Amino acid sequence: MPGFVNEEAMARDPFRLIAHAQANHARCIDDDRLEAWPDFFSESCVYKITTAENLREGLEAGIIFANSRDMLRDRVSALREANIYERQSYRHILGQPYILSDEGAEVRSETSFLVVRIVQDGDSHIYATGRYRDVYAISDESAKLNERIVVCDSSRIDTLLAIPL
Amino acid sequence: MPGFVNEEAMARDPFRLIAHAQANHARCIDDDRLEAWPDFFSESCVYKITTAENLREGLEAGIIFANSRDMLRDRVSALREANIYERQSYRHILGQPYILSDEGAEVRSETSFLVVRIVQDGDSHIYATGRYRDVYAISDESAKLNERIVVCDSSRIDTLLAIPL
Amino acid sequence: MPGFVNEEAMARDPFRLIAHAQANHARCIDDDRLEAWPDFFSESCVYKITTAENLREGLEAGIIFANSRDMLRDRVSALREANIYERQSYRHILGQPYILSDEGAEVRSETSFLVVRIVQDGDSHIYATGRYRDVYAISDESAKLNERIVVCDSSRIDTLLAIPL
Repeated sequence: MPGFVNEEAMARDPFRLIAHAQANHARCIDDDRLEAWPDFFSESCVYKITTAENLREGLEAGIIFANSRDMLRDRVSALREANIYERQSYRHILGQPYILSDEGAEVRSETSFLVVRIVQDGDSHIYATGRYRDVYAISDESAKLNERIVVCDSSRIDTLLAIPL
Repeated sequence: MPGFVNEEAMARDPFRLIAHAQANHARCIDDDRLEAWPDFFSESCVYKITTAENLREGLEAGIIFANSRDMLRDRVSALREANIYERQSYRHILGQPYILSDEGAEVRSETSFLVVRIVQDGDSHIYATGRYRDVYAISDESAKLNERIVVCDSSRIDTLLAIPL
Repeated sequence: MPGFVNEEAMARDPFRLIAHAQANHARCIDDDRLEAWPDFFSESCVYKITTAENLREGLEAGIIFANSRDMLRDRVSALREANIYERQSYRHILGQPYILSDEGAEVRSETSFLVVRIVQDGDSHIYATGRYRDVYAISDESAKLNERIVVCDSSRIDTLLAIPL
């Protein structure tokens, strides 16, 4: 297969693929298309929300934990049933992904995030800040999440988190 | 012209051109160089500010509407006359552009934004969040706006918007 | 050295190198690894924090000034001694770097920033916004700061700034 390796080297740009996936991921949540959200993950993924303080103190538990895409789908269903009364939306603003390691099939990155909560007929305020510690499965054309640890800066987290972070 | 097509393929990078144009666009507003702002648009452009709610309900009107670069220039003149009394500034923080479609001459993208309002001797607060739905005319070296729909997340928008968003 | 120039042309991407350095720089501060912070600067660097108003009025002084990496190290030591009592953290959200000029060895860029202050068991709020006016020494593999002028949008700056901006 002559030329295959070179072409792959040209095409494969983890930074760009991850930036692209993250922008799309954030749009999915902010546009309230939550049913499509689990598709950003691999089938046997890890998704965890925790705090910087928990991480410092070695507490593994996390506030929210899922270890399969099906669990993420269940979570979306539960959110849809619970959140029928509120009128709110969210806006994710992400920094640029920082590539921590690139081992071919798996790329680790860290990305700062800020989520603003918009309450209709109210003020917008900072809902959460922190960083994504991600492990992406990288192919030539896409980046899927094998793992996302959402590390919130504040320890005062709404335990009834209304949306995925 | 041998090599022309290849060189073009190398040079033409809509993501980079759009990111570059958007960063410069934001600087122009935040540096209060509003007179230069219409130059980011094509001559027969569309510029609209609307809300996510209006969009959902199919209301086309928008809060602000212009369909030519000259109308944008008029708007800047009007703002200059009106805003002589206040001491405030703005800071745009943009996410990465997400390319929705690339049809050669025209590229559609969506970009999350957050605008902070800074009142001198007062607190800074979130002025607006939302997304730009853009149509760019892409050449080898630049990206000009054929269309920008600013979709604000909140429906509570200051109708006397002090700046372009 | 055949091929050297071409390889350099491929590898040298100031935008990417600067974006990478800035994301890492922000992580360093937000992760509270301040001792590593001076390493983002050249040995004989300039680091200044000032305000947009000071800049407009031609006031050169700045709120904080250092003209060597050693002075930055001293500043970190002083911060470590002073800030033993507070529980707070910061989150930097940066826009994309805008390249102002590229003269080979030195590249000038401007980048919007937003810093959120997180007080444990309190609300998160906007601590500072502004722009970095940077001069980077660019090599094939890295970008080091020869100069960073932090231009804060607000003139109401905490003179006992708890962290580097």
